Amino acid sequence: MDIIKNGGVCTPLGFSSAGIAADIKGKKSTKKDLGILISEIPCTVAATFTENKVKAAPVIVCNDLISNNNEFKGIIVNSGNANACTGKQGIENTFKIIKHYENELKLQENFLLMASTGVIGVQLPVDKFINNSLNLINSIEDYHESFNEAIMTTDSFPKSIAVLVETDNGAYVIGASAKGAGMICPSMATMLCFITTDALIDKTTLNLTLQNAVKNSFNRITVDGDMSTNDSVYIFANGISGISINKEKDIRQFEEALTFVCLNLAKMIVKDGEGATKLVEIEVKNAKSEEDAKKCAFKIANSPLVKTMFFGADPNWGRLLASVGASLIDIDPDNIDVYFDELHYVTKSAIIDTSLENKAHEIMKKNEYKITIDLNIGNKSFNAFSCDLTYDYVKINTDYRT
Amino acid sequence: MDIIKNGGVCTPLGFSSAGIAADIKGKKSTKKDLGILISEIPCTVAATFTENKVKAAPVIVCNDLISNNNEFKGIIVNSGNANACTGKQGIENTFKIIKHYENELKLQENFLLMASTGVIGVQLPVDKFINNSLNLINSIEDYHESFNEAIMTTDSFPKSIAVLVETDNGAYVIGASAKGAGMICPSMATMLCFITTDALIDKTTLNLTLQNAVKNSFNRITVDGDMSTNDSVYIFANGISGISINKEKDIRQFEEALTFVCLNLAKMIVKDGEGATKLVEIEVKNAKSEEDAKKCAFKIANSPLVKTMFFGADPNWGRLLASVGASLIDIDPDNIDVYFDELHYVTKSAIIDTSLENKAHEIMKKNEYKITIDLNIGNKSFNAFSCDLTYDYVKINTDYRT
Repeated sequence: MDIIKNGGVCTPLGFSSAGIAADIKGKKSTKKDLGILISEIPCTVAATFTENKVKAAPVIVCNDLISNNNEFKGIIVNSGNANACTGKQGIENTFKIIKHYENELKLQENFLLMASTGVIGVQLPVDKFINNSLNLINSIEDYHESFNEAIMTTDSFPKSIAVLVETDNGAYVIGASAKGAGMICPSMATMLCFITTDALIDKTTLNLTLQNAVKNSFNRITVDGDMSTNDSVYIFANGISGISINKEKDIRQFEEALTFVCLNLAKMIVKDGEGATKLVEIEVKNAKSEEDAKKCAFKIANSPLVKTMFFGADPNWGRLLASVGASLIDIDPDNIDVYFDELHYVTKSAIIDTSLENKAHEIMKKNEYKITIDLNIGNKSFNAFSCDLTYDYVKINTDYRT
Repeated sequence: MDIIKNGGVCTPLGFSSAGIAADIKGKKSTKKDLGILISEIPCTVAATFTENKVKAAPVIVCNDLISNNNEFKGIIVNSGNANACTGKQGIENTFKIIKHYENELKLQENFLLMASTGVIGVQLPVDKFINNSLNLINSIEDYHESFNEAIMTTDSFPKSIAVLVETDNGAYVIGASAKGAGMICPSMATMLCFITTDALIDKTTLNLTLQNAVKNSFNRITVDGDMSTNDSVYIFANGISGISINKEKDIRQFEEALTFVCLNLAKMIVKDGEGATKLVEIEVKNAKSEEDAKKCAFKIANSPLVKTMFFGADPNWGRLLASVGASLIDIDPDNIDVYFDELHYVTKSAIIDTSLENKAHEIMKKNEYKITIDLNIGNKSFNAFSCDLTYDYVKINTDYRT
């Protein structure tokens, strides 16, 4: 599996995209905020959406479209406005915009999807989507930088990756772009991700492999424990490479590549969490059940006291053990081991050698490291990815709309 | 029920206390960090402790003592060291200190209790407790300021209250002191609270009324969603007033007064949450069940996105609805009403009049206000108390040990 430099949604054959500034963010912003991703030929599509009970209009509409239709050619995306908590009008606006673009592109009905991200509770400026449609369509090209920029909100860098997967019969590509930043939490981190592939794959297999890949990537990350109304991960497979994914071995390889793509994007999202300066992997191992390990890993990953400790690079292991206890899973409180990377820092819930504190501090100064909590009472594990809680998180979220 | 100004643990008859600087916080700190609360005669005692599975040594020891003994005369408290994650030695140290003070005070065995708060994972400096015992005992007086100060960690002000309760047969007093600040979350906010009363009440009734009072006060507050290893609420009843609490009417009145005392301290704790500048009550009403209402209220109360919005006084109601949805309880996403104090801000999950935004902003600039979420699908309610997430929270918790 080769990583393709500058990879993104457009690297697989037959996909192109565009991104322009359409003032959807308002205040005459010159930032790109309207994008389109399109395939030359119809694609098989799978998606996973937010579990939030308050779902944005595009999530409601597209969940429905994907359930009832088998092929799509592309998706309209915008940042600056989430089209969430917008009621019936939000739904109507979504359909209106989709239909307008289908007409402009001379596509069949229900061949386009839509995804939005941004402020909640404000109706979409539909006229701006319509007035800018020709401009957007004329900007469509084989590169993806503009598209990547158009989906950013408080992201500080565009996130994309592509991999070339070699099979016995030739190669195919999986490319993907994502946006993340705040409101990132498990069960669909608050994010949008658009994956494309030129592999040939049926809807059921595509759906299954996507569910598994998301479970092992986006659903393991957290920035602030919040869950958004708009989270969506889409995969478009157009089959242009001619490489068919139907044997078990090929499906396994496809899922592995898809997970690799998703996990890399997921880590980029955490690294770029609002105000974040560090990416910390938290593995809870030897728990009684995977559910316990997961509950514990996320309790630690979401603890403000732990996250400020990451920021201060303070190896205050007591906060880790307090978080383990607060997760209320089965533990032996006197027999917990903690590792910082390879350093065995806490043994049987105590520090034996205080000189380890300096070594732990050095590890915590790095941009990326791993904390392992060994519960020593079972054989199940779970790993989550978190970031630090910083002044900038507070600043970004205090000022968000003003 | 009259509030007694300058009330605290010592206002009921027969209680006295002391607090001194014993360098338990280390670095030759001159801050008070060792205290004692003592009754002239033996008391009936009830307590509630942290639900964290990692429990501090004094919690383990005293939970046991209270289960097995009926009368106590007082409690030793310290700040600066939690005696948590300290294993067998932590337990032994707790007993050693208790026994030393029992000897010094010429008390029967098992007549004293102990509570600690502070850094986790460091053994107590037992010699400092012993070397300072005469000094502490000689400082015992009828006032409580020193005791209140001795239990503070990152608290910015001492917290105490006392009420005079009139009955048909005369009056009794309930006094209380608490410490709070960080790591405050439901199921026992991370805090210590010491309540005293000169009412005459049996252990079973005292225990029941305390459980109810805590459920309706300390278990409704959150600062950062973390739960400590040391949370303890103690009540000492010495009966010196001669007012007996055994008729149903008197028990109800006692519970009401106790809840009033606890709720006032609970609110002080949130107001003084690390870095907090605002106290916000969140009521979720007309939910399908009280459990749903509680889950939803705490999801909102603990959301970093909501808490930074409090800090910025930004009436970004979309974040509130996103939090409601993220709580995963039963809702009708299109029929949620939101009130800021008396202002009906959101109607049927939408803003009808954008001019309300300014009014909501004005309310959010206050130090205290209430947000009501009306789910309109049932008739059960729950209210929680939260604070804002500020730069100072990050600062305090980044620097905690250094």
